[in-house]
Amino acid sequence: MSLDPRILHYFPRGTWGLIEPHFSDHGKKILSTVITFVEDYCMPAEKVFHQQISDDPKLRWATYPAVMEDLKAKARDLGLWNLWLSGGEFQHLAKGSGGGLSNLEYGVIAEVTGYASRTAPEAMNCSAPDTGNMEVIARFGSEAQKQKYLLPLVAGKIRSAFSMTEYGVASSDASNLRNTTAVMKNGKLVLNGHKWWISGAGDPRCSVHIVVAVTDPGNSSKHRKHTLLLVDPKAPGVEIVRPMSVFGYDDAPEGHCEVVYNNVELDPTTAIVGGVSSNLGRGFEMLQARLGPGRIHHCMRSIGVANRALDLMELRVSNPARKTFGKQLNEHGTVLADIAKSRAEIEAARFLVVAAARQIDLHKAKGALKDIGIAKFSVPAVTLTVIDRAMQVHGAEGISQDQPLASMYAHARTLRYADGPDEVHIQQVAKVELRDRLPYIQDRAARIHAAEVKMGAKVRPAKL
Amino acid sequence: MSLDPRILHYFPRGTWGLIEPHFSDHGKKILSTVITFVEDYCMPAEKVFHQQISDDPKLRWATYPAVMEDLKAKARDLGLWNLWLSGGEFQHLAKGSGGGLSNLEYGVIAEVTGYASRTAPEAMNCSAPDTGNMEVIARFGSEAQKQKYLLPLVAGKIRSAFSMTEYGVASSDASNLRNTTAVMKNGKLVLNGHKWWISGAGDPRCSVHIVVAVTDPGNSSKHRKHTLLLVDPKAPGVEIVRPMSVFGYDDAPEGHCEVVYNNVELDPTTAIVGGVSSNLGRGFEMLQARLGPGRIHHCMRSIGVANRALDLMELRVSNPARKTFGKQLNEHGTVLADIAKSRAEIEAARFLVVAAARQIDLHKAKGALKDIGIAKFSVPAVTLTVIDRAMQVHGAEGISQDQPLASMYAHARTLRYADGPDEVHIQQVAKVELRDRLPYIQDRAARIHAAEVKMGAKVRPAKL
Amino acid sequence: MSLDPRILHYFPRGTWGLIEPHFSDHGKKILSTVITFVEDYCMPAEKVFHQQISDDPKLRWATYPAVMEDLKAKARDLGLWNLWLSGGEFQHLAKGSGGGLSNLEYGVIAEVTGYASRTAPEAMNCSAPDTGNMEVIARFGSEAQKQKYLLPLVAGKIRSAFSMTEYGVASSDASNLRNTTAVMKNGKLVLNGHKWWISGAGDPRCSVHIVVAVTDPGNSSKHRKHTLLLVDPKAPGVEIVRPMSVFGYDDAPEGHCEVVYNNVELDPTTAIVGGVSSNLGRGFEMLQARLGPGRIHHCMRSIGVANRALDLMELRVSNPARKTFGKQLNEHGTVLADIAKSRAEIEAARFLVVAAARQIDLHKAKGALKDIGIAKFSVPAVTLTVIDRAMQVHGAEGISQDQPLASMYAHARTLRYADGPDEVHIQQVAKVELRDRLPYIQDRAARIHAAEVKMGAKVRPAKL
Amino acid sequence: MSLDPRILHYFPRGTWGLIEPHFSDHGKKILSTVITFVEDYCMPAEKVFHQQISDDPKLRWATYPAVMEDLKAKARDLGLWNLWLSGGEFQHLAKGSGGGLSNLEYGVIAEVTGYASRTAPEAMNCSAPDTGNMEVIARFGSEAQKQKYLLPLVAGKIRSAFSMTEYGVASSDASNLRNTTAVMKNGKLVLNGHKWWISGAGDPRCSVHIVVAVTDPGNSSKHRKHTLLLVDPKAPGVEIVRPMSVFGYDDAPEGHCEVVYNNVELDPTTAIVGGVSSNLGRGFEMLQARLGPGRIHHCMRSIGVANRALDLMELRVSNPARKTFGKQLNEHGTVLADIAKSRAEIEAARFLVVAAARQIDLHKAKGALKDIGIAKFSVPAVTLTVIDRAMQVHGAEGISQDQPLASMYAHARTLRYADGPDEVHIQQVAKVELRDRLPYIQDRAARIHAAEVKMGAKVRPAKL
Repeated sequence: MSLDPRILHYFPRGTWGLIEPHFSDHGKKILSTVITFVEDYCMPAEKVFHQQISDDPKLRWATYPAVMEDLKAKARDLGLWNLWLSGGEFQHLAKGSGGGLSNLEYGVIAEVTGYASRTAPEAMNCSAPDTGNMEVIARFGSEAQKQKYLLPLVAGKIRSAFSMTEYGVASSDASNLRNTTAVMKNGKLVLNGHKWWISGAGDPRCSVHIVVAVTDPGNSSKHRKHTLLLVDPKAPGVEIVRPMSVFGYDDAPEGHCEVVYNNVELDPTTAIVGGVSSNLGRGFEMLQARLGPGRIHHCMRSIGVANRALDLMELRVSNPARKTFGKQLNEHGTVLADIAKSRAEIEAARFLVVAAARQIDLHKAKGALKDIGIAKFSVPAVTLTVIDRAMQVHGAEGISQDQPLASMYAHARTLRYADGPDEVHIQQVAKVELRDRLPYIQDRAARIHAAEVKMGAKVRPAKL
Repeated sequence: MSLDPRILHYFPRGTWGLIEPHFSDHGKKILSTVITFVEDYCMPAEKVFHQQISDDPKLRWATYPAVMEDLKAKARDLGLWNLWLSGGEFQHLAKGSGGGLSNLEYGVIAEVTGYASRTAPEAMNCSAPDTGNMEVIARFGSEAQKQKYLLPLVAGKIRSAFSMTEYGVASSDASNLRNTTAVMKNGKLVLNGHKWWISGAGDPRCSVHIVVAVTDPGNSSKHRKHTLLLVDPKAPGVEIVRPMSVFGYDDAPEGHCEVVYNNVELDPTTAIVGGVSSNLGRGFEMLQARLGPGRIHHCMRSIGVANRALDLMELRVSNPARKTFGKQLNEHGTVLADIAKSRAEIEAARFLVVAAARQIDLHKAKGALKDIGIAKFSVPAVTLTVIDRAMQVHGAEGISQDQPLASMYAHARTLRYADGPDEVHIQQVAKVELRDRLPYIQDRAARIHAAEVKMGAKVRPAKL
Repeated sequence: MSLDPRILHYFPRGTWGLIEPHFSDHGKKILSTVITFVEDYCMPAEKVFHQQISDDPKLRWATYPAVMEDLKAKARDLGLWNLWLSGGEFQHLAKGSGGGLSNLEYGVIAEVTGYASRTAPEAMNCSAPDTGNMEVIARFGSEAQKQKYLLPLVAGKIRSAFSMTEYGVASSDASNLRNTTAVMKNGKLVLNGHKWWISGAGDPRCSVHIVVAVTDPGNSSKHRKHTLLLVDPKAPGVEIVRPMSVFGYDDAPEGHCEVVYNNVELDPTTAIVGGVSSNLGRGFEMLQARLGPGRIHHCMRSIGVANRALDLMELRVSNPARKTFGKQLNEHGTVLADIAKSRAEIEAARFLVVAAARQIDLHKAKGALKDIGIAKFSVPAVTLTVIDRAMQVHGAEGISQDQPLASMYAHARTLRYADGPDEVHIQQVAKVELRDRLPYIQDRAARIHAAEVKMGAKVRPAKL
Repeated sequence: MSLDPRILHYFPRGTWGLIEPHFSDHGKKILSTVITFVEDYCMPAEKVFHQQISDDPKLRWATYPAVMEDLKAKARDLGLWNLWLSGGEFQHLAKGSGGGLSNLEYGVIAEVTGYASRTAPEAMNCSAPDTGNMEVIARFGSEAQKQKYLLPLVAGKIRSAFSMTEYGVASSDASNLRNTTAVMKNGKLVLNGHKWWISGAGDPRCSVHIVVAVTDPGNSSKHRKHTLLLVDPKAPGVEIVRPMSVFGYDDAPEGHCEVVYNNVELDPTTAIVGGVSSNLGRGFEMLQARLGPGRIHHCMRSIGVANRALDLMELRVSNPARKTFGKQLNEHGTVLADIAKSRAEIEAARFLVVAAARQIDLHKAKGALKDIGIAKFSVPAVTLTVIDRAMQVHGAEGISQDQPLASMYAHARTLRYADGPDEVHIQQVAKVELRDRLPYIQDRAARIHAAEVKMGAKVRPAKL
């Protein structure tokens, strides 16, 4: 199969040369189609999408930009639906979808969707938090729950929220969660609690919250205290307090909302994920299963974001109308240096993510923790640096609503703490590095020392 | 073939997972053997090697450490001889050698030799400047020149120097060279000139200089002024003025020497590379052919140097005897952060080199200039950073003769200007990036703009 | 006079020790009063200020938060009115104000107002763009213009805008401005043009725009083409198109507006700054006079912003309720390192600004260009770094509306291009450095060389 | 007094403007004389100094460059002798010396000596380790010890070593020292131990070691175990094992030596600092008194080193003979950026040191620990960065013996761990910052919160 030459404009020849053997013909075909979809449909729809969101505080959260349904229809037509699950254990859910992609292939494809990150992932039914939520219900839900929530999610008919983060709690370690409880009372589970940063909870199409609640506070294991509950956002007692803002962006109409659950009465059979009381206390376990590849998807889209920023920078500095001090911007040595470094940093960072995706293919997410961790703390730093350089050459326009750069920066910034702050990943990677590597290098050092002595070298007494 | 598990201690699982499909079974076998050679022979020989170099200024440059011949013999036994040329056009020269490696495979293998960079490359007859010199003679030399110089070089019986760099001249652009001339006089070429930083010229085994001399100063093309000349270092008029030092290292007995050619009389037939007067003025062209993969070899060995520094750091901070402020060093968060970042930066940098090596395999060095440039300016910065962190945890010992770190730092530092300073590569990469990339992204921007307008978005007038 | 001990909580003892001799007792008293004003009035008013701005797009730009008038009254009571002009040539305007401050003193005081940057500067009638606009009118305006605009500005009764920046023009070099013209027609100056990023133009109290317009496009000097015009924002033809946003902040109700002037008819006598036709073409000259100390004020407030971010960071990491992985945040080595580095970087950056302020005192702004340039490109980078670290320890809250950090970041980011991008200042500083410094060090090098030779040292021939 | 205009070539106008009020006329006069001494005598003597050191390993350590005695005579003539102690409690020792300088003044002056760091400090009898050693003996020594060691040291007739650092011990925390012991036996103290990095111990003029030895290993206080002993380097049992090297430099003939004390018999009366047995166990206390201003002196000289590197860079890039790619180096934007940043970073770093020196003047070293710590970890990083940039524009010459840059880099690198590694100072500064600052900002936060509530703002419940 001859290669779609556009692929080499997204993945430079040097990079593609290393990745290519990991790509099936099928993967290449999907990648090519995704490029078409993103370039011809999603990127052009971006302005319309934003212009279809009302400035009126009342209307702002009541409707969803109509253009999204057009994009979704197009994505289905092109066979780009639910690609995220096509290679995994839930492939049966994805009838008629792309199918058969490895994590590496899907990761590379996800990068391209990062060019149009506000529209493309959702248009392809591949966006957070729905993907993780579908995974949870598919894996742990009862048949009734699958019928009620999973099928419409898979079909893109409803959306969902994941209600985990709590105010004042270092929520990246889920065992810390404590401000939301559910207590059995007269055959009902009564939910009370306070969450924030619940992405998508403002969306008028949001039809279910998966809520992490403490159900067994006294359990001696901190991993047996929580339960996942399915909650209807229209149930009495569910209140959307306000949208949180990200550097001034409220991300309407999806939003990242502060939510209060005030004596919400739930039927345990329908609300507990799995539908049976024996699933009380299994929340932590289900949460663990939810994480993993998702981080890689964020990272890959983030590489796409960085590439788009660099594209914008290259366009800007090559605009002959913009001379300063008698030179076009691309004649300034410092500007060229920023471009070259950005290209080098992007390619290097992408390899880290692709390598992690490959490890997930080989050893599942659990066996790829170190590689995922490295990608997780390395990529957002690069993306932020590249966007910042691109903003700088744009002057004031770069941080305004006329360019996507400031919004890209703000959202890329969240990746430095979402799913665990950089610092946590960095410490964990170092610990795994030392655990896995020390025995070998200590042994080698001892062997070298013994051999040196034998060769008659003057050496200090052996030390570690 | 089951994988030698040691490979995964040099190339972490995540990295190897991406590289592996590019490796033949043969390549894996050689890689495995090189690990054995470096661990069991070269690294243990390092102290002896240094201790066999005399401190007496007279003896210091008169003999070469005897241990090197032992290592060379071992490398031949193991089939690790001349691996650098085994995959290229001069493979016929390498009878009995490893053979058949791609540039990618050789690059990965070269990294391992970087762990013992003072001994392993030479022991395997793979060290600069001999590799490049052999290439020049093989490609352009006359039969007599091949007999006289190439065969003993291939056999590791003599060594050579490449006499290019001139004082006061930005020599990385060879067309600038002007301080060395050769003039025909009575049938002889009379060579006069002044060079410095001639690596290996101090070596008692050095038996030929390839000298870049101006032979046609008036030529209208700056690429037709120079000629490559083969000069016997023992000829009358060749004077080794002094060794230059790299930081405080003189790198005896090879050295990086200042050399004066004072009325050295040369027979044109034997001295002009190619042996015929028609080769006068072809020096620049031959120089171009000489560069290329060599830069990648430096980069790959440099990754090995960085990995060795990280190994030393991990050993040091895990030494239970070294507590500060009540904690072992590997319990300090900042130390762990340095380890994790070093690992991430090394893996990212290595991918850049491996990708460039792959491009050389696919498109030859000329077709991989951007990728080589990216690797060239990215790798030494990482290596220096990692070594610096490793030095810091070693305290004073880290910069002393008791650890290899300071010497590694000093020599890695030279890579930021050798074969062209970072700044030159950075500017060139940016220009290629813009040249190759702009047409596509400008066209895409225009298409997106047109589509936006069609969709009814409010947009400013089109701009680039 | 004994020192108000609170001063040492804003200016650490080490820093104050160096600055103190530059401070008069009067200056110390004002500084002390400003601390009171900022701590007791401005910082507590911040939330109310924001809550008094309506979310309704129609009301949002129609009223100004009432709390501001309270703060202004308080500032007058405390003698903190118009401090910015008290030391300069316009001191007579500031009857009853603080008075008598040097630029250094005012700079140090401005830093404290940076802690409450949305309220304190305006409350003290010290905020941009009014300060610069008052300076222009005071210096160049006619008596009638002073009566009409200057006195109410000095009294804080009206506000003003400075209408300079143009879309698509590198406006930091004012000689580039070209999209706004004023042409004499039937005794009227007819203004047409398109500006954006006009700060304060959205403010319902804004009563005058100072517009930079081309009036003599054919003038052979690029410094004689522009004229400053005073324009009533309610005049027919003045249209506020939209507010520009900074990241996602619209900064209502002041805003940074896109403004169109569409056939606005002006009376030359009242509109041309100075009131006479002979001032046509003097715009560039007046602009030059307007810049200078203003940049230092931005920088000093920016240091205050950085200090506030560090305070928030220290508070957060010392909160005993926030443990991660069993440790309070201030027990993590990497967090402590970020605090120590932030402190060091802030103190170092502040000295650069204070030194520049001192130079303005000694040599006026023109004689302090290099020092101003150094401060200008050094300070925002530090402020952004410190805010970023503070955001990181706050997790999601750090980028939300519940903390001021994201807004601080967004606005500090604008300082990297406002009044000239970093790159321009960096290049200029380097050129002044070389111009001023080279003759001395070249001469010294020659003297040293001659002396070395005389002492019998072996030296290479002299070179520069 | 009119200012010597050369001062403004060492301390740019902006910087001097802030420092000047701290300088007495006397200080300015000394500063001016030091500039003369360094420019006219020390810098020209540098090459001769190095050329007077033999390459022969036997002679290398036997004689000291004769030029030093000339420089010392000249310094005495100029009244530049022992300036380091002139302002302190030992001023009486410095009869006929400069006298009367504050720590700030001496610090600023020390910077200029950093331009000729191999010669000027010693020539002025202001070099480590002698200054600290003189301080110890002056403060704690017996009269006999003062006669025997202090007077010749003050007169520059002998030199000394400070024998503290031990192999395998984190010696920056002196309480860790354990490999050297002195035991009373038959009325003699018998010293056994192993030290390394003993600067100056190789110097043929070195006449006394101050040795830190464990004399009471069982003492319950780790601060009462050590004693300072005065040892004659020619006593039986004292063996200089080898010089340690710093990036390949052995710094002959002074050296940084590994030293073994093998059953060295000492008379307690003459050997114990103070001359009485009751001083056994007071070593730690004496060590504490020894540190302090010394760190600032290193930092100030290090600023001088950075400035010299920048001077060399400016000379090099302004050399018209050195064009690359058709431009002189100072026409490249990236080169100019490096110059501007270096200037900004040097000025900022210098202020930190000067501020710390001022604090020592006001509150003694103990009261300036935070300021000293900030200077200590900030300055070497700047110096290293500036030197590295200067090396880069010099290409290969930059790291060779033909320029001082590589040696400057190597020795500046040692400052990142000498007298405590960066990491230790960083952690301590952060702790002092939090200790001193938190109570105020916590109180202020509480006050602001209370006031906000009173003003009717909607606020979350108070938190720290």
